[in-house]
Amino acid sequence: MNTTFLETKALFELPKNMIYLDGNSLGPLPKSAVGRVADMMTHQWGEMLITGWNKAGWMQQPVDLGNRLGRLIGAEKNHLVVGDTLSIKVYQALASALAMRPDRKVILTDSGNFPSDLYMAEGLIKSFNQGHELRVVASDEIAEHISEDVAVTLITEIDYRTGRMHDMANISSRAHAAGALTIWDLAHSAGAIEVDLAKAKADFAVGCTYKYLNGGPGSPGFIYVAPRHSDIAQPALSGWLGHAAPFAFERKYRAGPSIERMRVGTPSVIASASLESALDIWDMVEMSDVRTTSMSLSDLFINIIEASCPMLKLASPRDATLRGSQVSFYFQDGYAAIQALIARGVVGDFRAPNIMRFGFTPLYIDKGDVLAACEIIGDVMQNSLWNKPEYKVKATVT
Amino acid sequence: MNTTFLETKALFELPKNMIYLDGNSLGPLPKSAVGRVADMMTHQWGEMLITGWNKAGWMQQPVDLGNRLGRLIGAEKNHLVVGDTLSIKVYQALASALAMRPDRKVILTDSGNFPSDLYMAEGLIKSFNQGHELRVVASDEIAEHISEDVAVTLITEIDYRTGRMHDMANISSRAHAAGALTIWDLAHSAGAIEVDLAKAKADFAVGCTYKYLNGGPGSPGFIYVAPRHSDIAQPALSGWLGHAAPFAFERKYRAGPSIERMRVGTPSVIASASLESALDIWDMVEMSDVRTTSMSLSDLFINIIEASCPMLKLASPRDATLRGSQVSFYFQDGYAAIQALIARGVVGDFRAPNIMRFGFTPLYIDKGDVLAACEIIGDVMQNSLWNKPEYKVKATVT
Repeated sequence: MNTTFLETKALFELPKNMIYLDGNSLGPLPKSAVGRVADMMTHQWGEMLITGWNKAGWMQQPVDLGNRLGRLIGAEKNHLVVGDTLSIKVYQALASALAMRPDRKVILTDSGNFPSDLYMAEGLIKSFNQGHELRVVASDEIAEHISEDVAVTLITEIDYRTGRMHDMANISSRAHAAGALTIWDLAHSAGAIEVDLAKAKADFAVGCTYKYLNGGPGSPGFIYVAPRHSDIAQPALSGWLGHAAPFAFERKYRAGPSIERMRVGTPSVIASASLESALDIWDMVEMSDVRTTSMSLSDLFINIIEASCPMLKLASPRDATLRGSQVSFYFQDGYAAIQALIARGVVGDFRAPNIMRFGFTPLYIDKGDVLAACEIIGDVMQNSLWNKPEYKVKATVT
Repeated sequence: MNTTFLETKALFELPKNMIYLDGNSLGPLPKSAVGRVADMMTHQWGEMLITGWNKAGWMQQPVDLGNRLGRLIGAEKNHLVVGDTLSIKVYQALASALAMRPDRKVILTDSGNFPSDLYMAEGLIKSFNQGHELRVVASDEIAEHISEDVAVTLITEIDYRTGRMHDMANISSRAHAAGALTIWDLAHSAGAIEVDLAKAKADFAVGCTYKYLNGGPGSPGFIYVAPRHSDIAQPALSGWLGHAAPFAFERKYRAGPSIERMRVGTPSVIASASLESALDIWDMVEMSDVRTTSMSLSDLFINIIEASCPMLKLASPRDATLRGSQVSFYFQDGYAAIQALIARGVVGDFRAPNIMRFGFTPLYIDKGDVLAACEIIGDVMQNSLWNKPEYKVKATVT
């Protein structure tokens, strides 16, 4: 790669005296984003007003952004569109997939899926009222549960708690052998690991852009539909911007071509301007470099923390190729421990009931940061009641 | 009112040499919005990072904004929430209403409804596959079509083409007498006319914030659920932020209290910051003053244009109390005429097949603007082939 991570790091606003290991929850601010958004507001919205939809390319932007993002996850050109939120895109993908498998009633998912995906499926099943079933199985057993009654698998590739990674190509292949479709939630994959949707033969994929992709708080979601399905899939949430001719104002819905039909309502242009700045940085790097570096950083972190903090029990897979770009530890007082670390400038986060998470994001976190964070974590954990022999650690897996 | 419209006009960026009569499509930029957004990005996202969700109040913001907006349309406190897009909120309201009337299958709407509302209903009906019917009747006959098989009416209060206004209180009353529920789309009402959702006994209402409310291109939608329904209504799009305890990460969905359950995914905080600036201006005024002034401006406009441009045929109700805050004229060459006007600095817009629209927005359009616009429109129309006797005008109503 031509751009070094030292160079990309300089493109982010990173608070002094803070080591930010929470890019898996919310990425930091690209320095250019404030100016980019101000420029869009001042010179596009402010000066072009309504004509900005065409003159400034707002109308086409969700597909343009989708193509830039698509390069990072192996999507074919014009098969990924940005918009709405991840939860909304889960619903769209699910509804489309179920309509393509009308004789099957099972949505197969695993207990490691992000709750909102489960909730959206539950809401869909209830409102569809067609006898669908959300079958939740153990994460490590999902492949073997893909039976002939499964319409679609709904799987988050990387577990938000532990970073455990599913084998997308293998599960997709098993799903297809059983006649099922696949939906991949890439919330913790996009910008974190190498994903090749086309090669893995994913049917649908969805994700968000505010975590590893650094689009800003609440920046839009995205949806991918494989080329073989994109002119068949029905969006269910059939809004006017997914219509074949939105400005003809026809009374009947006619689905737009390919991925365009997955658009719904009017997209947030202000939020998209911020995402553009983030993608400018992503345009400079290759995911293979990001992944190599993130594996190296997270391995280093595990080795030091395990040696210095025996009260913390590794929750993530030890093998870097089996986990995403985060490392988690079980610790029963994890909430208090994360608060203590934040007070010392090391920002990770806590997920109930007992998980401490740390994200490794090579665009702006380097080896020096990891070493500095480990020193502080070691200091906090060792000089606390948690290091006393009478403090009994119950690191339970839930 | 204490704040004059001369004062509010000074709070917007309005391009020189332009009279912007298209605030019904996209409101202009509040001067404070650029700084507000930059401040949010720099000092909240940039410095607080993930802690902004609590420290900066991002998590609570959709309800806070909803309450400020709710004052303008007569919503009870904590019964309106901002988020997603208008189309998504139509789907949510429809799904909720249908679940509350399981024995009825008809969604009643009118031919003046905005196409996206019809499309969303069509997509919902198709995916629900429960024998629902979208019954589309003539706009002026909708009240008499509210029969005992109607589950819910889906009506845009003000016709996006003509500005014709429905009688919300009367239709709601007739709907309730027949056992039906009502959904009001306020896209062209909120910030345009006086709406009193509580008094009119609306069941659900939805809308957008980028037109009269000036939130910015693609700023979020909103949904209102009447207090008597808000703990019964099921959101269908049941995302994690509508859960009773989003951060407990439970596997099963439990709907949050009241309007909170209508939240879905992670809201765009950047877009919301811009909307905040717009609401700062709305906080200064009373809708009764806005309405009085907009009726006076639009009456003036109609009188002058009818006198000076006989080729234009009024498409809006002549009685100001029966129309929203826009005035439309039928003209078969409307597209070309609007382009000619834009070239002269008068920005209206065109809606196929033959409607020229002009919006009147007292926050930043005054009598001087209307007079100046009328002069230009008169000049353009009179000094054109459209004013030649051999040019036959076919002003058709569609």
